[in-house]
Amino acid sequence: MPKTAPTPWTRRHLLGIEALSAQEIKALLDAADRFFPFCTGRRRAPRLLEDRTVLNLFCEDSTRTRTSFTLAAERLGARVLQFHAATSSLNKRESLADTVRNIDAMGVDAIVLRHPERGAPERVAQAVGCSVLNAGDDAHEHPTQALLDLLALRRRLGRLEGLTLALVGDVRHSRVARSNLFAHTKLGNRVIFVGPPVFTQDLDVAVETATDLDAVLPQCDAVMMLRVQFERHESLAFDTDAYVRGYQLTPARLARAKPGALVLHPGPVNRGIEMTDEVADGPQSVILFQATCGVAVRMAALALCIAALDRERAPARAKAGKGKRR
Amino acid sequence: MPKTAPTPWTRRHLLGIEALSAQEIKALLDAADRFFPFCTGRRRAPRLLEDRTVLNLFCEDSTRTRTSFTLAAERLGARVLQFHAATSSLNKRESLADTVRNIDAMGVDAIVLRHPERGAPERVAQAVGCSVLNAGDDAHEHPTQALLDLLALRRRLGRLEGLTLALVGDVRHSRVARSNLFAHTKLGNRVIFVGPPVFTQDLDVAVETATDLDAVLPQCDAVMMLRVQFERHESLAFDTDAYVRGYQLTPARLARAKPGALVLHPGPVNRGIEMTDEVADGPQSVILFQATCGVAVRMAALALCIAALDRERAPARAKAGKGKRR
Amino acid sequence: MPKTAPTPWTRRHLLGIEALSAQEIKALLDAADRFFPFCTGRRRAPRLLEDRTVLNLFCEDSTRTRTSFTLAAERLGARVLQFHAATSSLNKRESLADTVRNIDAMGVDAIVLRHPERGAPERVAQAVGCSVLNAGDDAHEHPTQALLDLLALRRRLGRLEGLTLALVGDVRHSRVARSNLFAHTKLGNRVIFVGPPVFTQDLDVAVETATDLDAVLPQCDAVMMLRVQFERHESLAFDTDAYVRGYQLTPARLARAKPGALVLHPGPVNRGIEMTDEVADGPQSVILFQATCGVAVRMAALALCIAALDRERAPARAKAGKGKRR
Repeated sequence: MPKTAPTPWTRRHLLGIEALSAQEIKALLDAADRFFPFCTGRRRAPRLLEDRTVLNLFCEDSTRTRTSFTLAAERLGARVLQFHAATSSLNKRESLADTVRNIDAMGVDAIVLRHPERGAPERVAQAVGCSVLNAGDDAHEHPTQALLDLLALRRRLGRLEGLTLALVGDVRHSRVARSNLFAHTKLGNRVIFVGPPVFTQDLDVAVETATDLDAVLPQCDAVMMLRVQFERHESLAFDTDAYVRGYQLTPARLARAKPGALVLHPGPVNRGIEMTDEVADGPQSVILFQATCGVAVRMAALALCIAALDRERAPARAKAGKGKRR
Repeated sequence: MPKTAPTPWTRRHLLGIEALSAQEIKALLDAADRFFPFCTGRRRAPRLLEDRTVLNLFCEDSTRTRTSFTLAAERLGARVLQFHAATSSLNKRESLADTVRNIDAMGVDAIVLRHPERGAPERVAQAVGCSVLNAGDDAHEHPTQALLDLLALRRRLGRLEGLTLALVGDVRHSRVARSNLFAHTKLGNRVIFVGPPVFTQDLDVAVETATDLDAVLPQCDAVMMLRVQFERHESLAFDTDAYVRGYQLTPARLARAKPGALVLHPGPVNRGIEMTDEVADGPQSVILFQATCGVAVRMAALALCIAALDRERAPARAKAGKGKRR
Repeated sequence: MPKTAPTPWTRRHLLGIEALSAQEIKALLDAADRFFPFCTGRRRAPRLLEDRTVLNLFCEDSTRTRTSFTLAAERLGARVLQFHAATSSLNKRESLADTVRNIDAMGVDAIVLRHPERGAPERVAQAVGCSVLNAGDDAHEHPTQALLDLLALRRRLGRLEGLTLALVGDVRHSRVARSNLFAHTKLGNRVIFVGPPVFTQDLDVAVETATDLDAVLPQCDAVMMLRVQFERHESLAFDTDAYVRGYQLTPARLARAKPGALVLHPGPVNRGIEMTDEVADGPQSVILFQATCGVAVRMAALALCIAALDRERAPARAKAGKGKRR
């Protein structure tokens, strides 16, 4: 049974990777490892979040992240409330802060937020008394995605040090790329953002960049292909054919990477664009394993953040009357 | 542990406040008081609705009411089915009565209904064998909202007698105002509907009205600001500036009310329209406390109505074969 | 308590009726009979699916089928994830197979799929390791609907042999009609598809057809009226008045059928089109009873398929390490 006590984790929120220390990242990964045997539901997880309520507040479409957080929370015994922004009072001109304050007053333990505005999770965290987990804010951060990528790498490679990774594609608009960059930099790994100049020039983060994927691959222990976000590029003159010629991961191209190099993709994959079917379904692909790791990582993030919340609340409750009343 | 038995409550439906006696209103509030310590989920509530199913059938947008009913039901151990009208067979020309009869035949214990047509909850109640709770029908009634307002007032003022309240704004289109008016009238309190003539003239309820908020405030123990429903007024020539000058609750205006007068709002608040930030977030505002009280009230309403349903069903089951089969 | 062990059921998927044997159909109905006393939730069902996860993946609107599967799964102790196609990554050009593979990797036990494309359930079943239940694919199959129709007939008529049934209306576009035809043919019953030539000519199934309902009725033990799918016929020159004259089930018409003949309808009913209110609400109508039977049938389908899945998984797990790890 996982023991979550002996970790250096003291945050009640998980808002991004940028603010975390290497030790905190490892604490999350270690907890995720402890939850891993329970993450697919075939073994009953300890009910660490029994009688807790987690609010999934998704103001953008999501299948896998929403489902993954839901499964993670429910497998720990929590109830999950699903919010579809399209059917909520967010339509009635109410500010996000007022909406979450109101729900917080009804008693929830954690809010999982996906939001199209950068920094929205921080604003929500300042407004409420419960935990807040960032499930993606614009092109800013997507911390649990980076953590699940790390977990998949660590479990498959056996280590998380001395690695070189290429993150390939629209790194400019990718919160996944940013969160991974922050994590690997803290862990001492080398990250190279690879893509055409339109994606890799004048970035707002300090990172090694390259435009020639074939030149970079021989140094790579892992290649993370990012989704081409056609919905963002409609107005751009995005040349799909040129992109495929230069950056699609094919078996031939993958053969240039280090032996056994892993292929990651946060999904959903545009097959035939970012990679061929042979690569997506091949032995070096960990794409489905990433999905499995995602549940373990979210179990860990929820359990650790809510445990920290409880420690914050405990003295307040003790003061207010021996913990009997709120 | 709450005991729900010793109450005068015998209704299996909660369709509106207008039909209730003062004693019934107090029975609901007393039950809500008993559930209050459990309503935010920090203490485990008795599982009075274990294995029960509550259907949330919302044919209009709602964040807080839907969430509040969901939390209330789940904290008592019930399962909640969420219905989004937009994705249901209501699109396929089926009548509301046929839809709910069909679901009732699958076995649910309560239907929580929000519907744009006045009287829809009554029609549903006549069609089904389970409990029906009105979560707002057009500009008609919103009984649990009035009850949570009463609970917030009673818990903060220590009493619910001899009060004078101003309900300010678009009282013509407000089910909240109507349900509150019915409740306070039965309890012997004085309610004044305040707003520009377009909202307060020729109402279909008997109520004291005023157009001058400043003149009314000195008599008020509580001021309930109603949301300006811009979505209703798009076609009207609604003069927002004039409304703000005449009716926005500012610190200066609030100072004219009785000392310690409470400020209520059913939410969502249009900040800068109905009130300023200082008032919304000030010490006399009970807006977030209303949200907390809402869960307690809905726990009480569900528990009492379903207990009454069980009493109605018990003899029928006894007759049909010792309660073993349906 | 239902025992699901002594059945000939070995399939982990329920994709259609066409592939089933008469013995398999009876095994499902027998299991549904055992679950029937628990299906409305008034008696606590055995928690056969405790800690299991069922994914409701509905890519078309549905009220009753989605609700029925949800109640069935939850009454057996499973958790249900609701997927609304409109808010999912299916919007992001991802293939259905990739979506379900990804979710399968997170650990679900069954996927209940409604999809506008014929054969989609088969494609999903090939992609995933969990159970797949078809909740309706285009005009192809809707197996649990046919099974609930059979259960309602068997429980009300006391037998399921030697029957003659008319299926009336738009049989061409009806997955309900097809699945019922397959079932009754296997069970040795006589099925007649009845409707105007536009619906009954040149069908892709071998079936007795008729255009004159009045001539067919005297032989019928049951009449199943199908919903006129106006949404499909918008572009057609569908003559509603002529349809009503020729095919609407009225009390006078129903009197021509065998005494006590049952009236079925998969719902939602277009009252005043397929039948009059007197017939829909009359003593020979089993429409609401069908809804009740639907929950029992879906409990049986989920329990039998997941039990078969467990048997398939058991040896694999034993091989992989004594069933302790996935």
